[in-house]
Amino acid sequence: MGGNTFGEAFCVTTFGESHGGAVGAVIDGASPGVDVSVEDIQAQLDRRKPGRGGVSSTRREPDKVNILSGVFGGKTTGTPILLILYNKDADPGAYEEIRSLFRPGHADYSYRKKYGIRDWRGGGRSSGRETAARVAAGAVARRCLQQRGISVLAYTRAAAGIWCGHVKPEEIENNALRAPDADAAEKMAQKIHELQQRGDSAGGIVECRIHGVPPGLGEPVFDKLDARLAGAIFSIGAVKGVEFGAGFRSADMTGSEHNDRMGEGERFLSNNAGGILGGISTGADIVFRAAVKPTPSISSPQQTVDTDGQDATIRIRGRHDACICPRIVPVVEAMSCLVLEDHFKRHAALTA
Amino acid sequence: MGGNTFGEAFCVTTFGESHGGAVGAVIDGASPGVDVSVEDIQAQLDRRKPGRGGVSSTRREPDKVNILSGVFGGKTTGTPILLILYNKDADPGAYEEIRSLFRPGHADYSYRKKYGIRDWRGGGRSSGRETAARVAAGAVARRCLQQRGISVLAYTRAAAGIWCGHVKPEEIENNALRAPDADAAEKMAQKIHELQQRGDSAGGIVECRIHGVPPGLGEPVFDKLDARLAGAIFSIGAVKGVEFGAGFRSADMTGSEHNDRMGEGERFLSNNAGGILGGISTGADIVFRAAVKPTPSISSPQQTVDTDGQDATIRIRGRHDACICPRIVPVVEAMSCLVLEDHFKRHAALTA
Amino acid sequence: MGGNTFGEAFCVTTFGESHGGAVGAVIDGASPGVDVSVEDIQAQLDRRKPGRGGVSSTRREPDKVNILSGVFGGKTTGTPILLILYNKDADPGAYEEIRSLFRPGHADYSYRKKYGIRDWRGGGRSSGRETAARVAAGAVARRCLQQRGISVLAYTRAAAGIWCGHVKPEEIENNALRAPDADAAEKMAQKIHELQQRGDSAGGIVECRIHGVPPGLGEPVFDKLDARLAGAIFSIGAVKGVEFGAGFRSADMTGSEHNDRMGEGERFLSNNAGGILGGISTGADIVFRAAVKPTPSISSPQQTVDTDGQDATIRIRGRHDACICPRIVPVVEAMSCLVLEDHFKRHAALTA
Amino acid sequence: MGGNTFGEAFCVTTFGESHGGAVGAVIDGASPGVDVSVEDIQAQLDRRKPGRGGVSSTRREPDKVNILSGVFGGKTTGTPILLILYNKDADPGAYEEIRSLFRPGHADYSYRKKYGIRDWRGGGRSSGRETAARVAAGAVARRCLQQRGISVLAYTRAAAGIWCGHVKPEEIENNALRAPDADAAEKMAQKIHELQQRGDSAGGIVECRIHGVPPGLGEPVFDKLDARLAGAIFSIGAVKGVEFGAGFRSADMTGSEHNDRMGEGERFLSNNAGGILGGISTGADIVFRAAVKPTPSISSPQQTVDTDGQDATIRIRGRHDACICPRIVPVVEAMSCLVLEDHFKRHAALTA
Repeated sequence: MGGNTFGEAFCVTTFGESHGGAVGAVIDGASPGVDVSVEDIQAQLDRRKPGRGGVSSTRREPDKVNILSGVFGGKTTGTPILLILYNKDADPGAYEEIRSLFRPGHADYSYRKKYGIRDWRGGGRSSGRETAARVAAGAVARRCLQQRGISVLAYTRAAAGIWCGHVKPEEIENNALRAPDADAAEKMAQKIHELQQRGDSAGGIVECRIHGVPPGLGEPVFDKLDARLAGAIFSIGAVKGVEFGAGFRSADMTGSEHNDRMGEGERFLSNNAGGILGGISTGADIVFRAAVKPTPSISSPQQTVDTDGQDATIRIRGRHDACICPRIVPVVEAMSCLVLEDHFKRHAALTA
Repeated sequence: MGGNTFGEAFCVTTFGESHGGAVGAVIDGASPGVDVSVEDIQAQLDRRKPGRGGVSSTRREPDKVNILSGVFGGKTTGTPILLILYNKDADPGAYEEIRSLFRPGHADYSYRKKYGIRDWRGGGRSSGRETAARVAAGAVARRCLQQRGISVLAYTRAAAGIWCGHVKPEEIENNALRAPDADAAEKMAQKIHELQQRGDSAGGIVECRIHGVPPGLGEPVFDKLDARLAGAIFSIGAVKGVEFGAGFRSADMTGSEHNDRMGEGERFLSNNAGGILGGISTGADIVFRAAVKPTPSISSPQQTVDTDGQDATIRIRGRHDACICPRIVPVVEAMSCLVLEDHFKRHAALTA
Repeated sequence: MGGNTFGEAFCVTTFGESHGGAVGAVIDGASPGVDVSVEDIQAQLDRRKPGRGGVSSTRREPDKVNILSGVFGGKTTGTPILLILYNKDADPGAYEEIRSLFRPGHADYSYRKKYGIRDWRGGGRSSGRETAARVAAGAVARRCLQQRGISVLAYTRAAAGIWCGHVKPEEIENNALRAPDADAAEKMAQKIHELQQRGDSAGGIVECRIHGVPPGLGEPVFDKLDARLAGAIFSIGAVKGVEFGAGFRSADMTGSEHNDRMGEGERFLSNNAGGILGGISTGADIVFRAAVKPTPSISSPQQTVDTDGQDATIRIRGRHDACICPRIVPVVEAMSCLVLEDHFKRHAALTA
Repeated sequence: MGGNTFGEAFCVTTFGESHGGAVGAVIDGASPGVDVSVEDIQAQLDRRKPGRGGVSSTRREPDKVNILSGVFGGKTTGTPILLILYNKDADPGAYEEIRSLFRPGHADYSYRKKYGIRDWRGGGRSSGRETAARVAAGAVARRCLQQRGISVLAYTRAAAGIWCGHVKPEEIENNALRAPDADAAEKMAQKIHELQQRGDSAGGIVECRIHGVPPGLGEPVFDKLDARLAGAIFSIGAVKGVEFGAGFRSADMTGSEHNDRMGEGERFLSNNAGGILGGISTGADIVFRAAVKPTPSISSPQQTVDTDGQDATIRIRGRHDACICPRIVPVVEAMSCLVLEDHFKRHAALTA
């Protein structure tokens, strides 16, 4: 109930602050006998690392994952898996001068109000660094899902107001934006660079497509698969909206346009539903999009208040992504993997 | 883990099928000593009833709630509260002819695949009737929240492509659409009537505004307040998207536009965040919108398959809402109440 | 978290007070497609009924169970099952005169302190009547377990200081004590009758033997099978002790005496462990005993205090079991069934 | 649901194997602002260390705890607290020769059956070493409880068939048995030494007394305080029985003997209930006892089977406690602290 555990059958508990001793996760409920290696996990973590062109921050994190329990002889044992990343490059100095100011668009104010105390170094628990733990845990779930024939692919569908005209999966990892359209990616990068020069930042849309999910996953009425995915994606900082299939366009459609007809072979002839009906997967691809807000850490001066409630002006220095989308991509994939592996297990329990 | 319980501290378990013996809810964890009456709950249930003009279906449900436990002398006792509505107007005849056909846009196919068996009468568990249980439970949560000074207000912000130009709360209950703009409501009604005449239906946008929430609610990192609200709203059938504050518009904004500055008195000067930062309420109004898909039950013929996988054409008869938005409104409010009351209690536990 | 839900995969939520509208249970997570009938459940409920000779109280409860959801065409559908028993014979008059007195050995005082309010009629939520809901839910779990080849058998091993010399299952339902030794049963009945004549009551030992459980059930380290069973049995009012296998005798044994050696065919040559090692079933019979305190409702006068904290003398009238053991027997079986079915599903989730 | 998380509001997840990289715990839900230091935790861990006279094993574990998150400036922040102990003295060599044999009285067989794979080094996850994580987490809970005026005290009430005649708290830490009676302690030590010389071991009784708990803790009907404590204590390896207050003696008592009368000042005149009625604390001391089985690792040869199901004889070498009671004492205290702190928070949530 503390809010730091995700999942009911494949349970992940994360811990760690930006500038504390470590971040990481404990996975409880992973199937025994699954091949899991440091390399599998590291590969995903490396995708999350900053430093891709000018788009991302330049913090140097080795982000080397350690597996300290639950894996024996290269295989999961069914006992809790501890994944831990020690914080190395953790210089709180950059935060010293703003420790008594609430950064606009950040969680500083709300954390202070909730807990009465907060680790102000680098955002503490509310830092994006916490998502490294999710990516690590998600990599284990991904290994399990691969055995089930499921693939999860996210990418930057739009950024800084520029949309990808097409989705070519092979282009995603070839550009700093993780956009599936090389031309759009270039325009995005240029636009974001301009914004960054002006001390500003950009938002975007991350889209995710999940292939291979059999019909039947999701536990109505409250733990519907879309409800769980949405909750998972909204738990990522910076996400302000989530939509499935036709999403917000559905509001303007008619029933005859929106309903996905079925044809021979129990095939859906369209996918406005985004692969989920009544909260249960239909076998069609699961497709959703997340609206990502512009990075709140901008270098231009902003009006705010200090911890005494007095008016103040804040200038945020340091290492920050001008557009967070490309780094959100692996986190969206990770959270999707956690949800799916959890629901495979829940479905197995229901029908056992 | 069965998926029919919502909340961790204020826990609601719903039960019931459209044409079974009853629908209802058990509330576990309600504070003792709160005044709760059948009338309080009935008032909310009556708002959910069909039969408002031509917009909604004409099923006649008395929908009278019974409180069979947990309330003594008009006050909650802290023990489980059973709220039950017996199904009276439950004629499965209308469904007999389509029991072996999968209705497009419905959960028929996915339920069949998941459970291997399904109560085909009126959609069974996937029927909108299940939401009566949520509204009943939500009414109890609402009573608790009123004592905490919190109000929850939802309304149809758009329907059939027509948007409300303004939000006048006093107009909401005066029109069949539950729209806060009388003129827009009239245009919506007309447009929906036309669609219905053509055997079609309409979608829309339901907006919700929550006032009076103090800073500090929400449990990062997974049970952030927005993540929980989003999950709750996506658990309502027909919802295809959820967004907070600036929502999907955030994707096109810059950081300097999107960041809500703070001014004297720890006041936010704008509300692009929608009242939540870092997953924790800030004290500003919580504002979110849900995209509601057009009613899938339309009378015009549709291509589908039958339970043997053979091509077929389906014509859906019977009582159906041409636009579900006005009936979703009290459900959105109910789910919001459940989330908030739950998080008040969770915050109390954390800081106890 | 409210405390009225048991189980994680086969989840049972009970509701109801002794003299409220109804008692019952919602089961969430039952496998779809299992044959369940009112008769199955009623048969177990009838075993719990009072009125067996002089041993039990003479309250007349029809205790007819109703299945109002989750079962369609005689089979479970995988959706929540509502089991409800309406309270008919609920005359609170007998309690009127003691409503402001705390009955010794009862929960009156602790409920008042916890909730600030309590339904004083017949013990309210703390009444033994609540266990009817457990027996009903347990009957559904029992049906599922029968399909898995598991049998659960409890009986009164001792009462009023008299022990059964042997365990003949066929004798259990032939005597009012549910003792597996006819001679002992007769002596127990006589002793209890004498105590009752003196306005007093008796305790005893209920033993339970579970046959057919395969190796592998139980989820270390906290949800070990014995830990879960013990928690379940201690949740039954009147239970003051639980022990597995050699139990408290283990304290005086040596390792060479206590260790169960294994022989050919992976067979255990003794069963001091009671069928569980490291919290996981071994395949041997699971055997445990529960110490049941003497019925606190005795007719002889007792010293107590009233709700104002003043000294008082209480005389309890009305219908009460002089020894609760025979009525605890089906409750112990029911709770055991809930634990086992839950753990079958949890194991299925883990290894899915 | 994986079984490695304990508590609902004060949630502890443990991880780690005997000879893996580390053991430890994540605490989620600890109140913010509580003073917690490495020293507080280390003091409890040191009590759990082996090497007290001849009674305990001589494994040399530095067992130094590290706090890697959730504490800032010496105070809890309300975010997850990672407590970790790296495994240093982890020589699996001693286990190499018995890796294919199931040790009698151990979890080797049941783990193998459950998971299909097991870390055989030192018992892996089923090792007593896992309890170090519980003691560490319990030390944090203890700090919280101290602020609430609660003290938790456990001790060896009996061992090797010898009972303490009195309970003098000041003597507990002065002898290797942690017995509250110096004379009894000496006899126990002598008897255990004799057993050890013969390649055998001894069991015992650990008693726990909790003082200062206000009336009102515990969540009926399933999460009664005694049910939760019993489940917690049974989750400790080697525990075969748990009883509260008069415990198993209750079975032979009459109601007039067993009922605790109340007198002026709402005081209980006896404590057969063990401080809990109806599953809720009464304000009287909570008293319970746990039956601890004799250490299964004995050096005399034992009949068993190997992993191929063939008959075999096993001789267990290495470092083992001849009587586990004194090392169980801090674990019983730790688990009690976890339960109590959890229930304080749960009660706060209920009544918030």
